[in-house]
This record gives sequence, C-alpha cells and structure tokens, in this order.
Amino acid sequence: MELLKDYIRQYGVVREGNILKVDSFLNHQLDPSIYQAIAKEIYRLYKDEDITKIVTIEASGIAAAIMVAQYFQVPAIFAKKTRSANLDGELYRTQVYSFTHGLEYEVTLSKRFLNKEDKVLLIDDFLADGMAMRGLIDICNQANAEVKGIAVCIEKGFQKGGQYLREQGIRLESLAIIEEMNEDGSITFR
Amino acid sequence: MELLKDYIRQYGVVREGNILKVDSFLNHQLDPSIYQAIAKEIYRLYKDEDITKIVTIEASGIAAAIMVAQYFQVPAIFAKKTRSANLDGELYRTQVYSFTHGLEYEVTLSKRFLNKEDKVLLIDDFLADGMAMRGLIDICNQANAEVKGIAVCIEKGFQKGGQYLREQGIRLESLAIIEEMNEDGSITFR
Repeated sequence: MELLKDYIRQYGVVREGNILKVDSFLNHQLDPSIYQAIAKEIYRLYKDEDITKIVTIEASGIAAAIMVAQYFQVPAIFAKKTRSANLDGELYRTQVYSFTHGLEYEVTLSKRFLNKEDKVLLIDDFLADGMAMRGLIDICNQANAEVKGIAVCIEKGFQKGGQYLREQGIRLESLAIIEEMNEDGSITFR
Repeated sequence: MELLKDYIRQYGVVREGNILKVDSFLNHQLDPSIYQAIAKEIYRLYKDEDITKIVTIEASGIAAAIMVAQYFQVPAIFAKKTRSANLDGELYRTQVYSFTHGLEYEVTLSKRFLNKEDKVLLIDDFLADGMAMRGLIDICNQANAEVKGIAVCIEKGFQKGGQYLREQGIRLESLAIIEEMNEDGSITFR
C-alpha cells in the first residue's frame, strides 16, 4: 500500500535494535487519514470472505480493528493483556511471549464473543516475531472459530513471524513489508 | 444520547459493587454502529471548538478516540500505561490511581505530540471517580495545552468524578449519565 509506505518513509524513524518508530501516526499518535486508508484497503482485500468478527490484541491493534470493523459492519474484539475486575465469566486464555519486554503475559478473551460460527479476520499494527498473532490464533482454535486471514499494517520481513504464518497456510496480508532498514534511516520495502 | 441509553438498557449488565458491564458493545467487543453514532455526537457537540488533538488513555478509550478523530480530522493520541521500549525521548508523566485494580500506575505521553498550541478534547469510555481524566488534564497542563472539554460515553453520576470536573469549570459532555442502578438490572438515567 503506497500511502502507508510514504508515511513510513516520511515519518518513520529507525532506531538501534531493528526498532522502527511509527509513533507519530500509527501507535501513539494516531493519524485518522492513514487509518481510514488502511481500513479501506483491508476491507478491499477481505470483503468477500464473509467475515463475522475482527479480532485484535490491546492496545495498539484497537484503532485499526474498530476502523476496519466499521467497513465490514461486524464487531471488533480486543483480547486483553490483564484480567479486568469487570471481566467475569469464562475466558479463553493463552500465553504470549513479548521480545520487546522480555516477558510472557497472559491474554484473555471472553467466551461469549467468539464461537464456532465465527469467521475471523485477525488484525494488528505490527508483525515481527508473530507471537501475539500466534496467541490470537490459539484463542480462535479454542473457540473452533475459522481464521479466514490476517491483516497487519507493517510486517518486519526480516523477522520470522510472517514466514511462520505463511507456512501454516494462513492468508496473511501485510500492507507494508520491510525487507531491510538501517540506522542511517534508509528503509527497503519488499 | 438515546441510542447509547438503549444499548445500555438492552445489553448492559449490572453487577455487585456498582459495576456496569458493557463489554458486549463498548469495551471488549466493540460495536461499530454505536461507535459511529458516539463519534458523530461528540463531533456535533465540539465541532466549533477548533480542536487540534483528541487525547485518551489506553486501552478502552482508543476506539472512541480514533473514531472521533476521523470526524475532526485531527490526530488522536493515547497516553500509555506502561513505558514501551519503543517510546524514547522526553515524556509527560503522571500518576493515576485505579480503584478497579487498587493500585497506582504511571501514565506517559510523548512531549513531541502535545504543546501549548494545542486545543484538546479528552475522551474516555467511562467516567467514574475521574482519576484517569485528572491524569490526562495534568498531562495537558504540563504541556500548556488548552483543555477545551471532555467527552465520555458513560458517566456514573453517583460517583464523584463528574461533579469534581464540573466544579473545576471544565466542559464535560457525558452521552449517558447513570443516576442509579440496581442488581435487579434496573438502570435510571439522569
């Protein structure tokens, strides 16, 4: 998606340790124009898949999920990283390892909102090692829901998440795939 | 806002301890129709205030913030509850006490995204004791940004947050104010 690549080139900042900061438009400050374009593009890619639920993980996937949901006119659900006092009833649970924070955390989603009738589109802002996405797939498997596909805004193509997911036969659409990036700020897209 | 009150009456569940569960449409599963209606109403209320930034707090304020931002066509920013490895540079910091979780946590927002030129609309899904909102106001004060107003989806009118904020002379628009609720499921709106 050319507009997203333009945003990354213009506003993205490359930091040591293969970190790409896109916090000025994607995951801290949120630019509504790029989010509208992202949502329209994801809808175009998956509109014929009879999607019934958009599923993401808090916090940085939520903005994309609700924006995409308004095009599909189906609910978005975000899996939670902490168990809230307001979340009672039965929960799907899975463990996700975060390389960014160097720890494993539990992710939960209420059983009331996902079941075997559902055709799910999984959404996130970033795909790197794919650990969060594997957690969401595990939750869908527990629910016997069908994962129709995954859409992410930015894939770090030099990390192993995308390859792993494609090898599982899962449809994965990444709106921008970074092949290589350097601390001089240069970014090569696949 | 009648549609939101209808949703609360139809899908809200009252639990012991003055807990109102609206997780089937507002803060776990997200209904795009009600979010579109909420965003349009908040835009109608504040469209003449020259808003330059929508500010909220992760996680459950993010969906409303990006939906509102697309009507104003200004950026949304969410304050973060945990310091991410990807968030470098200088941060505004404040402490928020959570009655729900019984602990105090730090909230941060990058100084790059908020300054004295900004006219801010603060957004959240719930207003109860108002602690999160007071944290966001503190951040705006640190930035010398002007708080033009607050919009929340649901105010618990029997808790003290709304009264406190109104006494400060801050414009507060709550789309639904709950005066009283009982465990038999009855809800009275103000």
